[in-house]
Amino acid sequence: MSKPQRYCLFITYDGSNYCGWQVQPNGISIQQKIEETLSIVLGEKTRIFASGRTDSRVHALEMRAHFDSHDTDLRKLKISLNGLLPPDIRILKVEKVDQEFHARFSCKKKIYQYHIHTQKILDPFYRHYRLHFSKPLDKEKIKEGIGYLLGTHDFTSFANEAHRGSAKNNPIKTLYRIDCIEKEFGLVFELEGDGFLYKMVRNLIGSLLDVGQSKIPPQELQNILKAKDRKKASAALPPHGLFLIKGIY
Amino acid sequence: MSKPQRYCLFITYDGSNYCGWQVQPNGISIQQKIEETLSIVLGEKTRIFASGRTDSRVHALEMRAHFDSHDTDLRKLKISLNGLLPPDIRILKVEKVDQEFHARFSCKKKIYQYHIHTQKILDPFYRHYRLHFSKPLDKEKIKEGIGYLLGTHDFTSFANEAHRGSAKNNPIKTLYRIDCIEKEFGLVFELEGDGFLYKMVRNLIGSLLDVGQSKIPPQELQNILKAKDRKKASAALPPHGLFLIKGIY
Repeated sequence: MSKPQRYCLFITYDGSNYCGWQVQPNGISIQQKIEETLSIVLGEKTRIFASGRTDSRVHALEMRAHFDSHDTDLRKLKISLNGLLPPDIRILKVEKVDQEFHARFSCKKKIYQYHIHTQKILDPFYRHYRLHFSKPLDKEKIKEGIGYLLGTHDFTSFANEAHRGSAKNNPIKTLYRIDCIEKEFGLVFELEGDGFLYKMVRNLIGSLLDVGQSKIPPQELQNILKAKDRKKASAALPPHGLFLIKGIY
Repeated sequence: MSKPQRYCLFITYDGSNYCGWQVQPNGISIQQKIEETLSIVLGEKTRIFASGRTDSRVHALEMRAHFDSHDTDLRKLKISLNGLLPPDIRILKVEKVDQEFHARFSCKKKIYQYHIHTQKILDPFYRHYRLHFSKPLDKEKIKEGIGYLLGTHDFTSFANEAHRGSAKNNPIKTLYRIDCIEKEFGLVFELEGDGFLYKMVRNLIGSLLDVGQSKIPPQELQNILKAKDRKKASAALPPHGLFLIKGIY
């Protein structure tokens, strides 16, 4: 028997038709689709470990996940996986990695984007990929609000309760940047942090949209952080505008 | 009773979930969805007349269609239609037009695009909007082939038999231009002509891809045109890469 080898998959997916990344009793998950396909291709039951989870209808441009298996040809493995996987999940790359590599624990930072279509009419080609939000937004206030969120904080107020069975996540996270990028169709928020709690991006951007509508003064975000109370912050935005861009290792 | 007024709708749609533009016994068409919605909003059975038809899974960025009705507020009409239509069909604009205007017969030219993803891995976010075609293509040969197609010809060799019940279409058409635009993801073919026969764009680009693969010499396209025989040309490409960009009036 050949020595076990660790591999890392680089995965992109359109999350529209899935119940999310993680295997769940109801609905088809991205993890399940990839594990089933890998197990067929490798001829043995194979589990994969991702850098994190995404919710139902959330997308990923580059999610990494590792698995252990026997020695195999990387090029053939990638072609076989893409041949058997549904077209809304693609394997961009397969790499051999050290046994010490762990898609979750070796990940130093993550980058997410949240896409908002601010024009009056939502482009039908982006209905699954952008939140439609055409009310006026004060971008100066949003940028002021972002200043209060950056840095190291206890983000409990911006975290929903995690799934049952999940390990308790340390609520102290560092947000390195939130860029508010103006596009011809609207706004893209790009966030970089050392980790994100459950629904944290959708909660943060939800509060920033409330700041932009003058429902919350920008400096109030400080008090919301201090309260460590989910009920103080705004509602989470819908999932379909959210993209995991990549993990940084 | 107020005098009948003619209106023109400017419509965009993602054709992925429809049997095409035209009302058909099996499947839901875009025309049916819009007629049903218009009839509800206007309070009377309303028929619409489009600039042409698109097949199942073909998209449109700007399709025009006219209808006659009583006097109504344009802004409210547009908002009501978009409120009731499914999100993959959007009304971009409603205009009052002269009784002489006819979405089909007043249309002087049409512009179509066909999108091809030439990279090894098909981006999952574009799986419904681009043909995946990663074999090498000789663009010089394609450009030479385009030269034989431009101008006024009998395009019978590039036309499938139209739907039963369709009016016989004059097979002599003028192609003003076919641009082969290189994109980061692949190629976009943009065609402008005074009219297009059934499946003509998909047949023309199918033959050009065969030219690009050296299956057909570029100058052979002349003989294919002269033959006036559908069997001489290449197979039609799949519908999902095709976009009606707009009609020119």
